Amino acid sequence: MSIAAREIHLKSRPAGLPGADNFQLVERSLPAPAAGQLLVKTLFMSVDPYMRGRMTDRPSYIAPFEIGQPLEGSAVGIVEQSAHPEFKAGDMVSHFSGWRDHVLVDAATANKIDTSKAPAEAWLGPLGIPGHTAYVGLLRIAGLKAGETVFVSAAAGAVGSMAVQIAKLKGARVVASVGSEEKARWVKELGADAIINYRTAGDLTEALKKAAPEGIDVYFDNVGGDHLRAALEAAKPRARFAICGMISGYNDEKPVPGPDNLAAMVIKSISMRGFLVLDHFDILPEFIADMAGWLADGRVTYRDTVVSGLENAPQAFIGLFSGDNLGKMLVKLD
Amino acid sequence: MSIAAREIHLKSRPAGLPGADNFQLVERSLPAPAAGQLLVKTLFMSVDPYMRGRMTDRPSYIAPFEIGQPLEGSAVGIVEQSAHPEFKAGDMVSHFSGWRDHVLVDAATANKIDTSKAPAEAWLGPLGIPGHTAYVGLLRIAGLKAGETVFVSAAAGAVGSMAVQIAKLKGARVVASVGSEEKARWVKELGADAIINYRTAGDLTEALKKAAPEGIDVYFDNVGGDHLRAALEAAKPRARFAICGMISGYNDEKPVPGPDNLAAMVIKSISMRGFLVLDHFDILPEFIADMAGWLADGRVTYRDTVVSGLENAPQAFIGLFSGDNLGKMLVKLD
Repeated sequence: MSIAAREIHLKSRPAGLPGADNFQLVERSLPAPAAGQLLVKTLFMSVDPYMRGRMTDRPSYIAPFEIGQPLEGSAVGIVEQSAHPEFKAGDMVSHFSGWRDHVLVDAATANKIDTSKAPAEAWLGPLGIPGHTAYVGLLRIAGLKAGETVFVSAAAGAVGSMAVQIAKLKGARVVASVGSEEKARWVKELGADAIINYRTAGDLTEALKKAAPEGIDVYFDNVGGDHLRAALEAAKPRARFAICGMISGYNDEKPVPGPDNLAAMVIKSISMRGFLVLDHFDILPEFIADMAGWLADGRVTYRDTVVSGLENAPQAFIGLFSGDNLGKMLVKLD
Repeated sequence: MSIAAREIHLKSRPAGLPGADNFQLVERSLPAPAAGQLLVKTLFMSVDPYMRGRMTDRPSYIAPFEIGQPLEGSAVGIVEQSAHPEFKAGDMVSHFSGWRDHVLVDAATANKIDTSKAPAEAWLGPLGIPGHTAYVGLLRIAGLKAGETVFVSAAAGAVGSMAVQIAKLKGARVVASVGSEEKARWVKELGADAIINYRTAGDLTEALKKAAPEGIDVYFDNVGGDHLRAALEAAKPRARFAICGMISGYNDEKPVPGPDNLAAMVIKSISMRGFLVLDHFDILPEFIADMAGWLADGRVTYRDTVVSGLENAPQAFIGLFSGDNLGKMLVKLD
C-alpha cells in the first residue's frame, strides 16, 4: 500500500526576496514505513526566517536545501503507521520534516508531544524552538536580571513575543520594537512597558533613547541593522546583547554594512553574543517545565498567524519578510 | 620657591586627524606641593590612540580633555619634593598626569614603581597599561587556551606586541597583522607563526583564511574595520573576539559603517566583548607578577619608539595614526 504525499520542493535558489516561482508543489507516493520509521501526517508546519539562509548554497551551521528536494523544518503531526516499538498510531509528535503533508520520519528524530499541556501547534511556538530561543537568549546568553531594562526587536514575532513575556516574568522593564499599530497593541497586552513602531517612529536611535532614558542593560536582537545601531547608542556600560537573528539583511543580495557605531562596544564594554538554540538543548527540560507552567497559569499567552493549505506555505514564508505575521507564522495542513 | 613647568595644552578640538595646531606648549610656575601632594619630574610619558577620543567633546567612560588645559595620560617620573609621608624625594613613580615636564600629583594617584624589576619606561609598556590590556583581553575576555589559533591586529603596536607574546607563552598559534615589512620582521622575532602585512596583502579576508586555513578561535581586535570583517569570515564556530580598540575609525569625522558580515555572529555563535582595562585592576598584581617574571627570563621582550622632548609630544601622538611606532610610542623628557 502506497501513500500519496504532497511536498513543497525548492525549485530554484532565490536572488533577494524569494518568490513563488522558487517553490514547486510535487506529488509522490510513499512506501509503508521501514523498520524504525514512522509515517506521520503533518498537522501544522512552521515557516521561519532562518530558512532563507538554507535557500542559498553556502557553508553554514546547517546544510543548504537542495534544489529538487523537499524543504524541511519544524512540524507537528500524528503518527498514522509506526514501525518503531516506542510509537503507535495516534501518537502526536514533533519532527523536523515539514513542508510535506505525509512523511516518513526516522523515529529517532521524532519527539512525542504532550497535547494535554498545550495544543499541538503550541509545540511549534511557545513550547517549541521560538520559545526555547527566547528563553536561552534572555536568561543564558544575556543573563537578564530583575530590575534591568531590555530592548526586544521584532517583539510581535514568534521569538520576540516570547522574549517580551519572559522578560516581564523575570522582573525586567521591556522596551519593544514592532512594525505596525496592531502589533503595538498586542505587545502592550503582553506587558511591554514602552513600544516603538519603527515604521513611524522616525529616527530609531532617538526613539529608543526616549523610551529608555537611562539606557538599556540587555538587547535581544532579531533584526540587526538600524535596530542594532540604536541599541549600541542606548546601551548602558557593560550591556549584554543576545544576537539571535538579523532578518533585516536575510534577503540582501549584496551584503549590507553593519552599524557605524561598533566602537561603542569598547567605550561601553558591551558584549555581543551570537547564539544558536541547537547548542542549548541541555536546558530543554527546564525550559519545557517553566513554559508549560507559565502557559497553564496564563502568565504566557501566544497568538499564531495561520495560513491554510500546504500549497500556501511559500506565500506564508515570503510574508515573514514583510512582517505579515503576528506571533508564530504557521501553515495548517488540510 | 616656585618651579617652572612646561605643559602641552589642548588648544582646539581636532576635526579628523589631529594637527600640530590643535596643541600648545605653555610655560607656567608651580607652587611647592601642598599636603598630600608630590612634585614629580616626568621622565617618560605615553601617547596612546585612545587619547584621540578624549579630544572630542562627548560623553564617554572618561571625561573629554578641556580646551586650554593640559592633556593627561600615563607617565613615569621621579619625586622631587614630597608632602606625603609615604613618598620621598628620589622615589620613582607612575602617574596619570603626563604631557608635562613637572607636575603636582596627588599622592593617592601615584604608584611607586620598582625599577629593579625593569627600567622606568617599561612601566608604561609591558608592565603598564598596554601589557595589562593584552593580558586581560587574551586571558580573561577571550579565554585563550593552549592549542588555539589567535589573530592579533596591530601586532607590532604596544598592546599587540604583548598580545603576540602572551599568546605564544600560553601555547597558542598566532596570526599577526602589521603594516610594514620592518614590523613583520619584529613580530616574527616575537614568535608569530604567520604574519600578514595588511598594506600589501591584497584582500585581507583571503589573506587571513590562507594564514589560518582551519579558522581562528580568538581575535584580539585593536583596529576594527576590514580586520574585524576578515576575522568574522575566518572565525570558527564559537570563536571569541576581545574588542580592545578600533583605531581605524578614531579620526573619522563621519562614522564609518561596520563590517557587512555581522550575521556571521549568529551563524557561527561568535561572541564579541568590548572591554576597558580600568575594569580589570583586580588582576593587576597577578599580571605584574607574571609579566615581571617573563621579562626577567627573557620570554617577553619589548621595543619602544622614543621621541625626545616634550614639545614633540603632539607629533608623536599624531604619528600613532600612520603607524610610526614599533612597540610603545614614548616621549622622553629632557
